[in-house]
Amino acid sequence: MKNIGIIGAGRIGRVHAQSIANYVNTAKVVAIADPMLNDETIAWARSLGIAAVTKDYMHILNDDRIDIVLICSPTDTHSDISLQAIAAGKHVFCEKPIDHDISRINAVLNALKAKPELKYMVGFNRRFDHNFRAIRNAVEAGKIGKVELVKITSRDPEPPSAEYAARSGGIFLDMTIHDFDMVRYLSGDEVVEVFTQPAVLVDPAIGQAGDFDSAVISMKLASGALAVIDNSRRCAYGYDQRAEVFGSAGAAASANDGASTVQISDSNGVTGEKPLYFFLERYMQAFATELTEFIAAVVNDTPVPVDAQAGLEAVRIGIAATISAKEGRPVKVSEVA
Amino acid sequence: MKNIGIIGAGRIGRVHAQSIANYVNTAKVVAIADPMLNDETIAWARSLGIAAVTKDYMHILNDDRIDIVLICSPTDTHSDISLQAIAAGKHVFCEKPIDHDISRINAVLNALKAKPELKYMVGFNRRFDHNFRAIRNAVEAGKIGKVELVKITSRDPEPPSAEYAARSGGIFLDMTIHDFDMVRYLSGDEVVEVFTQPAVLVDPAIGQAGDFDSAVISMKLASGALAVIDNSRRCAYGYDQRAEVFGSAGAAASANDGASTVQISDSNGVTGEKPLYFFLERYMQAFATELTEFIAAVVNDTPVPVDAQAGLEAVRIGIAATISAKEGRPVKVSEVA
Amino acid sequence: MKNIGIIGAGRIGRVHAQSIANYVNTAKVVAIADPMLNDETIAWARSLGIAAVTKDYMHILNDDRIDIVLICSPTDTHSDISLQAIAAGKHVFCEKPIDHDISRINAVLNALKAKPELKYMVGFNRRFDHNFRAIRNAVEAGKIGKVELVKITSRDPEPPSAEYAARSGGIFLDMTIHDFDMVRYLSGDEVVEVFTQPAVLVDPAIGQAGDFDSAVISMKLASGALAVIDNSRRCAYGYDQRAEVFGSAGAAASANDGASTVQISDSNGVTGEKPLYFFLERYMQAFATELTEFIAAVVNDTPVPVDAQAGLEAVRIGIAATISAKEGRPVKVSEVA
Amino acid sequence: MKNIGIIGAGRIGRVHAQSIANYVNTAKVVAIADPMLNDETIAWARSLGIAAVTKDYMHILNDDRIDIVLICSPTDTHSDISLQAIAAGKHVFCEKPIDHDISRINAVLNALKAKPELKYMVGFNRRFDHNFRAIRNAVEAGKIGKVELVKITSRDPEPPSAEYAARSGGIFLDMTIHDFDMVRYLSGDEVVEVFTQPAVLVDPAIGQAGDFDSAVISMKLASGALAVIDNSRRCAYGYDQRAEVFGSAGAAASANDGASTVQISDSNGVTGEKPLYFFLERYMQAFATELTEFIAAVVNDTPVPVDAQAGLEAVRIGIAATISAKEGRPVKVSEVA
Repeated sequence: MKNIGIIGAGRIGRVHAQSIANYVNTAKVVAIADPMLNDETIAWARSLGIAAVTKDYMHILNDDRIDIVLICSPTDTHSDISLQAIAAGKHVFCEKPIDHDISRINAVLNALKAKPELKYMVGFNRRFDHNFRAIRNAVEAGKIGKVELVKITSRDPEPPSAEYAARSGGIFLDMTIHDFDMVRYLSGDEVVEVFTQPAVLVDPAIGQAGDFDSAVISMKLASGALAVIDNSRRCAYGYDQRAEVFGSAGAAASANDGASTVQISDSNGVTGEKPLYFFLERYMQAFATELTEFIAAVVNDTPVPVDAQAGLEAVRIGIAATISAKEGRPVKVSEVA
Repeated sequence: MKNIGIIGAGRIGRVHAQSIANYVNTAKVVAIADPMLNDETIAWARSLGIAAVTKDYMHILNDDRIDIVLICSPTDTHSDISLQAIAAGKHVFCEKPIDHDISRINAVLNALKAKPELKYMVGFNRRFDHNFRAIRNAVEAGKIGKVELVKITSRDPEPPSAEYAARSGGIFLDMTIHDFDMVRYLSGDEVVEVFTQPAVLVDPAIGQAGDFDSAVISMKLASGALAVIDNSRRCAYGYDQRAEVFGSAGAAASANDGASTVQISDSNGVTGEKPLYFFLERYMQAFATELTEFIAAVVNDTPVPVDAQAGLEAVRIGIAATISAKEGRPVKVSEVA
Repeated sequence: MKNIGIIGAGRIGRVHAQSIANYVNTAKVVAIADPMLNDETIAWARSLGIAAVTKDYMHILNDDRIDIVLICSPTDTHSDISLQAIAAGKHVFCEKPIDHDISRINAVLNALKAKPELKYMVGFNRRFDHNFRAIRNAVEAGKIGKVELVKITSRDPEPPSAEYAARSGGIFLDMTIHDFDMVRYLSGDEVVEVFTQPAVLVDPAIGQAGDFDSAVISMKLASGALAVIDNSRRCAYGYDQRAEVFGSAGAAASANDGASTVQISDSNGVTGEKPLYFFLERYMQAFATELTEFIAAVVNDTPVPVDAQAGLEAVRIGIAATISAKEGRPVKVSEVA
Repeated sequence: MKNIGIIGAGRIGRVHAQSIANYVNTAKVVAIADPMLNDETIAWARSLGIAAVTKDYMHILNDDRIDIVLICSPTDTHSDISLQAIAAGKHVFCEKPIDHDISRINAVLNALKAKPELKYMVGFNRRFDHNFRAIRNAVEAGKIGKVELVKITSRDPEPPSAEYAARSGGIFLDMTIHDFDMVRYLSGDEVVEVFTQPAVLVDPAIGQAGDFDSAVISMKLASGALAVIDNSRRCAYGYDQRAEVFGSAGAAASANDGASTVQISDSNGVTGEKPLYFFLERYMQAFATELTEFIAAVVNDTPVPVDAQAGLEAVRIGIAATISAKEGRPVKVSEVA
């Protein structure tokens, strides 16, 4: 039985704690750290049988009984805590992104090279989604032949505040980063060039904050195949999350998940459910599978499904996309060292 | 080039005339007869290049240059005109049903036995529909294994008047007759027993006229397979025409046709088109194919796709269903001699 | 915190124990009884933190700390254990059916009348399914107007053995009983007459055992509306579970759930997932919601979603359907006292 | 009754002649010209009742009885014949593109300015397709709010020969030109900037001929909205023709048309029809509507649905896309004078 400490008791930290309680028999959460700790947090932790609750995550890193650390703290702490956790000999699950600074991600990669016995996984939850995985399985099974195009539609239900946008690293590192990882995952290929057609169509304040809220991003992959992502920070009908891979022998495409399959036919037409609105609802199963597979990799000493390199590559593409948006030109990912 | 005379210049007669003008190169309409003939009818006939227009259909039957007769007159004239046309040596396309009286249909069958060189086809247009034919093709190709169940949903957009219902022969001979033919067509099997669960749910006046406007009809087929039809005389979202055949290896099912494939996603849901509302719109292609295949059978001297026997069987099932509805018991089709 | 004892540690008992562990905060499973108890059962119970494990369910009924009993034992023990549990003052969740004998179900109803403070719920899990509930919600919200027809398709992936069929009470009490409950649930109406068109199309041994493996069952409801169920014990493409309610203003219909929304387009066509194959997979969410809502009714002292009367009515319809199949005639449910 | 002369008796010329024969009452084809005229052409023309058949299209232009000319000859003759037909005072329907040379298209526009009484329409048939038109109607009706993104997927079933590619003007002027027009049509907006991510993934010979066979093209529109097209010259499952418009209040998206709505469920999955394979089959209705609406515009002296300016704009965007593909940079359409 592996012991887990969670750093960060916010929304995603709690989702992971619950997933482990429900679905994992080989590990349990024994401690949780959050600087904002309050009575509610403590009560929640108790309800899951988590004995140790602390404001200082170093208590977790210094606890020899703890094998695994989940980093669910704010983005700007990810790389520092990663380095400390690796130094403390912990297996690490880190929410995306590791950092927005390539040199800091490389520091994490270097630290890991020195400790090959440690598992380090990045939380690209969409790789564990039933729909995207079914596409990937079809691609791997050769059902669509050689990959020629990856298309991803990714639209959030509601825009963030301009304040959030200003300190998020920008849409390409905050939102599109998931889609960049998905391009790599679905194609099994590397992105070599990015061109971004950005726009501010949803909220002028986001533009004034120096960010964008809409974009089309086209890419060239190492194999010569193409990819394209369309993003919007606002989608009137919910969380639009679709992908299509087109190849020499056909295509595999997913549709959105709705709350039911029911269609109502009346004098207005035939109406089905909207896509699930909230990302936690849409990806609940993916979050559970993600943790299950990570812990299985630790327990069985097998490779993690999403390694630190994947975390690095998505950020490099995100930075290239950001440069492209600013400079209005296609940018090679190799420019981002 | 075969010459065609049309008896009855109503809606369906005009549809057939137009289909022949558009799609048939081996035959042309040369005469049309209608007792209600007026200037508008004449102008319409002229616009299609039909020279001869008459009130008396005997002019068509007596015209030696005419090879083929389409009987598009009121139902109660079908068997009489059929007998006269056969006597006159014409190939006949007769709208459904041949008659509501089995003995009169048998008279037509007997007349045809004496003239095996004549083609006689009954207008069960749905057999020529792209959807139903694709199901039949799948069944014939063995894709669903041995047939175990045929399910048909058939709902009209708007109910007829109670006056119409009163003189229609009843819903089972007027409306369901198409579905009975479809059960035979899709299964390639014969109906041996019928049970009707009827209801008056749409218009009490239809019930007062001695008819029903809603029904579920279950059947046993000669092979032991089952069939079920559900009917309604009113459907708020249009003309609902679906079928499913279930077998030992799978199922083949059709959906409705809409005016487009477009779906609009908004805060209310994902809304697609209603089924096409009007039967002429829904089955326009089927009507054209029906005539094309009938004329090809005449020109090439090959069997017609829907013979007089099919016309007889559908009426027998319809009468059995009517008896079942009245007597509240399953009725063998063999009771209907 | 309510304490729960589970009687029967088979498949469904374990599903319920897991659901409670995962989703219920107001109650916990403290004991489990199973006459077939073995080391594996004990280990499983331990893994869920269930301390008391016994071969004798009376230990549960006699334990004053236990508030709630889940009856997950074989069907022929349901009514006896129900009576004992009620006598012991327990709230009861009983898997369907309560019994195949109306008088024994009535005994349970009578016992409950004497103890109105006890909750008694029957495990018609499909009422808690996201798809069927969405249909019911649409009907209740008046979106389809006045109900005119309920249609249910219910096909199992694989037939039971003939031995199972022989002692199951027959297909209508073993399998269709769920669909009868669904007719009542979706329509909010009562079944007054049943006609069964049965067949043996899947396995002759089932027929030799005196049962059927295929059927079309048509019904008349108290309001005058109609209903129809089609059943098969074998479905090549998985567990086919669909419903449609048609009314004066439209229709609400559900489709099957698949493992993903992915469609693969290639030279053979556009292919999507089969329906989920196994009932536990298909109804996993429904089983969890069912227990959650039952326990909430106990905790909050509110009416249970599926009461004993519902358990009685489904069996009465099932018996009427069985008589209809044997006697070849429509049977009034009022004949089944 | 207007008289029509068709220049070019190839595939598309014949489609238009047949459409007019079937659907147009206010005009008729009286002459056809084709330098490759042979007995088969003559027989075909006779079968449609076209009396005059000639090798020299000037016979048509010089015939005072002819009001309307359809230019269905090879692309490189379109602008010359257009100029001659305008000079001869004919209304003109010209297949796309008018020319690949902007100055020659401008010559046509100038000629038209001098004769405002003449109708001139360009054959962008997809504007008349039921699916694309339903999207446009939804956009115009405000159902999706303010347009933010237009997405078009356009894939041909089979690649052309490298020889064809070499003299086609390139994929962007030969194939994507339809999609550029669709961006303008669906958005009601103008393209101001284009970036092309091109590839040779289907046939290296096409690359050797200096052309591409795959591309993703992203665009910025005058309103600030975005657009993206993905193209492939080969699609294993047929002719893939889809569009989506996303806006502030929702999205409208079309799916492909198949030969039927039938789905076959078996142990392999649930399989529906492929998209219609051949463009004439897919757009048959659109070709008919196109001609019907053009002739109605001539007869009623109303604006044509696709004017010469639309023909110019699509070519300008195509040239910008071609420059972008060659120079690897975003190109303003205003660069193309």
